[in-house]
Amino acid sequence: MPRWSPGADGRLYHAAMQLIVERGYDKVTVAEIAEHAGLKKRTFFRYYADKREVLFAGSAEFEHSIVEAVRAAPATAAPLDAVIGALAEAGTGLASWGEPVRQRQRVIASSPELRERELFKMQALAASVAQALSCRGVEGLTATLVAQVGVTAFTSAFQQWTEATGHQDFSTSMQNVLGHLRAAVCPH
Amino acid sequence: MPRWSPGADGRLYHAAMQLIVERGYDKVTVAEIAEHAGLKKRTFFRYYADKREVLFAGSAEFEHSIVEAVRAAPATAAPLDAVIGALAEAGTGLASWGEPVRQRQRVIASSPELRERELFKMQALAASVAQALSCRGVEGLTATLVAQVGVTAFTSAFQQWTEATGHQDFSTSMQNVLGHLRAAVCPH
Repeated sequence: MPRWSPGADGRLYHAAMQLIVERGYDKVTVAEIAEHAGLKKRTFFRYYADKREVLFAGSAEFEHSIVEAVRAAPATAAPLDAVIGALAEAGTGLASWGEPVRQRQRVIASSPELRERELFKMQALAASVAQALSCRGVEGLTATLVAQVGVTAFTSAFQQWTEATGHQDFSTSMQNVLGHLRAAVCPH
Repeated sequence: MPRWSPGADGRLYHAAMQLIVERGYDKVTVAEIAEHAGLKKRTFFRYYADKREVLFAGSAEFEHSIVEAVRAAPATAAPLDAVIGALAEAGTGLASWGEPVRQRQRVIASSPELRERELFKMQALAASVAQALSCRGVEGLTATLVAQVGVTAFTSAFQQWTEATGHQDFSTSMQNVLGHLRAAVCPH
């Protein structure tokens, strides 16, 4: 989700969200989104490859911030701690936007096409996190597994946060999910 | 992957694999697959929704066998043990087909479209496994996490098996992955 800005990409995102919330994802065209943002259709395609992509504005920056945080974690940090820390921080930033983020999540949940694209984005995030772990010297299979487990925990925590009524701290959700995960995976 | 059979679905799968291995996924059309199988294009669409789907012939039966195995696990089995057992059994069955399965996996790896569809299938499998765990009385969040972790372990083990030269036992790969996973996730 982009910060409000006078830039065309942010205007297209907000125009898309407004029209989709009013009419539903399938009932809105790229031409209408561009028009609502006061731009031409070809300008839309300068920023986003297709209609789905506008809902994932800012996802490259989001991934980048997580990868940087994994790289910057103390050398002594265990791989899973580095990943959970990075994801908790990024998720806390996202959650601080409040209701608009929940609304975006409901829009994504409303369309199989959008859910599929989100799945792809999360998979790409896991691959980038695994690579960042490899750069820290973590062995390949462990890097892949830790990245996947981290992204799974993030997805569950984010869903908890989205569905929570009233205030919910994202880091608390993340620790809660991690507790459940360890209880289920670790021998007693 | 369907068993060899005189049925149209199996003939379409084998025709698709043969043409794709020869020419590459993007260079083969549905009409050509149908013709190579001695069938009409409209017959293709009676069995498969699109060109991608023919590569996932048998995936519904695969998912069904895993869900049934999770349901049939002893009542005393821990959720993760039930899931790992079910996935190891299904994976062993798949691996027993040998080279054709490795070839199919290379075809899928060759195309972003096919990798996206596979991701979607694995996500659908995780959702069905989570539901089967819920039916065993496992609490919602734990069911989701265990299903995701199980599918992650399966995917890694299957990749290890695909890339292995010479004989590799699938259950051994699965236990190896699980060992790595526990070492990374569980407090020491």
